[in-house]
Amino acid sequence: MSKLKLGLFGFGCVGSGLYEVLSQSKFTGAELIKIVVKNKDKQRKPILVPFSYNPNEILEDDEINVVIELINDSSEAYRIIKAALIRKKHVVTANKKVLSEHLDELIQLAQQNGVSLLYEAAVAGSIPIIRNLEEYYNNDSLTSIDGILNGTTNYILSQVNDGKDYQTALKLAQDEGFAESNPTLDIHGFDAAYKLTLLIKHAFGLTIQINQVLTVGIQKINKEDLNYSNEKKYKVKLVARAFKDNGKLFAFVAPHFTSSNQNLFNVENEFNAISVQASFADKQLFYGKGAGSLPTASAVLSDVSSLLYDYKYEYKKTNDSNLVFSDDRFVKIYLGSEDVNNLSKIRFYNSDEFYVSKNYSFRIGIVRLTDLIKIDWNKQNDVSLILFSDLFDENLDSKQLTNFEFLNRNSNYSIH
Amino acid sequence: MSKLKLGLFGFGCVGSGLYEVLSQSKFTGAELIKIVVKNKDKQRKPILVPFSYNPNEILEDDEINVVIELINDSSEAYRIIKAALIRKKHVVTANKKVLSEHLDELIQLAQQNGVSLLYEAAVAGSIPIIRNLEEYYNNDSLTSIDGILNGTTNYILSQVNDGKDYQTALKLAQDEGFAESNPTLDIHGFDAAYKLTLLIKHAFGLTIQINQVLTVGIQKINKEDLNYSNEKKYKVKLVARAFKDNGKLFAFVAPHFTSSNQNLFNVENEFNAISVQASFADKQLFYGKGAGSLPTASAVLSDVSSLLYDYKYEYKKTNDSNLVFSDDRFVKIYLGSEDVNNLSKIRFYNSDEFYVSKNYSFRIGIVRLTDLIKIDWNKQNDVSLILFSDLFDENLDSKQLTNFEFLNRNSNYSIH
Repeated sequence: MSKLKLGLFGFGCVGSGLYEVLSQSKFTGAELIKIVVKNKDKQRKPILVPFSYNPNEILEDDEINVVIELINDSSEAYRIIKAALIRKKHVVTANKKVLSEHLDELIQLAQQNGVSLLYEAAVAGSIPIIRNLEEYYNNDSLTSIDGILNGTTNYILSQVNDGKDYQTALKLAQDEGFAESNPTLDIHGFDAAYKLTLLIKHAFGLTIQINQVLTVGIQKINKEDLNYSNEKKYKVKLVARAFKDNGKLFAFVAPHFTSSNQNLFNVENEFNAISVQASFADKQLFYGKGAGSLPTASAVLSDVSSLLYDYKYEYKKTNDSNLVFSDDRFVKIYLGSEDVNNLSKIRFYNSDEFYVSKNYSFRIGIVRLTDLIKIDWNKQNDVSLILFSDLFDENLDSKQLTNFEFLNRNSNYSIH
Repeated sequence: MSKLKLGLFGFGCVGSGLYEVLSQSKFTGAELIKIVVKNKDKQRKPILVPFSYNPNEILEDDEINVVIELINDSSEAYRIIKAALIRKKHVVTANKKVLSEHLDELIQLAQQNGVSLLYEAAVAGSIPIIRNLEEYYNNDSLTSIDGILNGTTNYILSQVNDGKDYQTALKLAQDEGFAESNPTLDIHGFDAAYKLTLLIKHAFGLTIQINQVLTVGIQKINKEDLNYSNEKKYKVKLVARAFKDNGKLFAFVAPHFTSSNQNLFNVENEFNAISVQASFADKQLFYGKGAGSLPTASAVLSDVSSLLYDYKYEYKKTNDSNLVFSDDRFVKIYLGSEDVNNLSKIRFYNSDEFYVSKNYSFRIGIVRLTDLIKIDWNKQNDVSLILFSDLFDENLDSKQLTNFEFLNRNSNYSIH
């Protein structure tokens, strides 16, 4: 492809970072022609590229062959991405929500128009995970992906694991610029869930909507839960997980107890990481900054520069895949509450531990993912839910279940 | 490129792994036509591809368009790689020694003949580090690379940090198949140094020979050194390091004290990892299996599959680079010996710590890299040398030096 002429939407954290990265790097293959921003009245330091307030000044400019979409408003972003693809412009975006909600439509639109839709920056900021899933593992069979995909929650949990209470940690994250003033998308796990669906597409070939994925936030985790975690030398991390078992794919985003033998255990503060398990390459970890102006902009620049050699995602796994998305399996959970009666919100198939006291109670045992996903845990204000990383056979046989029932009867409401 | 016809040299650990990976994966873009092995008498389980004992049966076969070189004998490997490139066959190899020693010649030969020379498997086995340096960081400015690039020494050091003595750990590594019966290349740091020169080429654009790189092995590290390390909560790791400072590039392979805030601290046993620091992308870590039959073969397969879209390394940094390779700077070292007089093998510019006892003495302080590299530390049987990760200004100013001299005079031979 000849010289790239870029039109940029958005000049916030990542947009201005991209301007800086383009100015500082020796990359000569692209020229930034125009920047469209929303707010006319916002004070901006003067730069060498003209600002405009009308999207059509980019979309209808035939000279511009690459649209970079880095705005906050996701409905407007969706409109821009579609319009750009239809006008046969390549699109580079970091908008995980738009991508996750409209992935197949946008992929198809790019293919029909013979242009590329690239979005490395949408998942784990600076970490080149999509590129590696696409190219490096394209002939390997992946079995699982475990990611810390949200820097805000990881920062908060690092503080919480360290002894701070949740509200203080959230305040600190906001002061440090790691959490937005309305951090619900991050805190409730949706941001990580959007990213997980994109990873699933590239790793396993399935298109999943986040409402199919159990999504549990970190907002309920309290001192009592942390006491248990610390006692067992765990750290609580918000883990986005997808794994293949017996022709089925399972996925969830939830707080997990991680132990020191797991790669994600040492991922702290605003860092992200993705642990990949493949049949041949075995276990691999990619670690880096999951957000931030320059790190995210560097991922955008990397996508832009790959357009010079007509790079496109191939979605090879999509055609290969005989996988079915499922929630039919057992998982081990910790459920904590001030009121022991809240621990019956879900049916347990056994009791590994059951602790009851006047102030706080918790129960640990195996439950069905199918049951778990029926409840919107972000709306259960009276319980905290944390998953264990252990995996179980998809179907516990009847003997195991009987055994579990037996344990259940004998341990119910006993003091631990 | 149309269908790839592969000729494979070598059917050892990685070669047979490649056969397995090709058989098991759904990759249909390549066909393995012939395998050339050296030893006619070796018992091999029958496979579907014919064995041959004459290299020309691959090299002179016009149908074969890709040569995969996975043999042990490096002079023979050099001959094969050259012959294949001259015959306009793409080459995929894992031979770090041949590549490091003849890199520019082989790159030129590939370019002249319009074919690709790929070697992801030569550095850190399954970790896609060369690919990522080539593509993902091609417009970012890298400042440093720190790698654990040798699984054998990392396995041994994991055992040693855990309390085993060096000889027991080496024996264990050999029993587990992580160390060869003659492990000198690994133990003395040469294997890591070869790999480091390849990373330097892709990250910084310079072609370096390993004799320019300070290379210190792990064989001298003993209980006394470990006592110091444990007391400070360090772990000793064999770190291959390259970093840019003020227009100069510095590189060394040596045992380092790593602390828990460093990414490499938690890399244990046979695993490899590379920590990359970039201007825009910031700090990133790539972690995975550095050796082993299937992980290494997966990297070879990944190279092979990228030939389908005519992938070539671009060595973009080579043309950009105004860097000069240098050893003109200060580093902080630990030098230990049973005889305190051995600690004067090198001039110290200060003494951070100086411990003397009847049985063991050590000294910690700043020395010149220029002085350090003049000594072949692998041949100094009476001292152990471990580096600290701290970096200092390239030139300590005269005031600092005076101050250090003063400290030096006052701390000499005092009991710590």
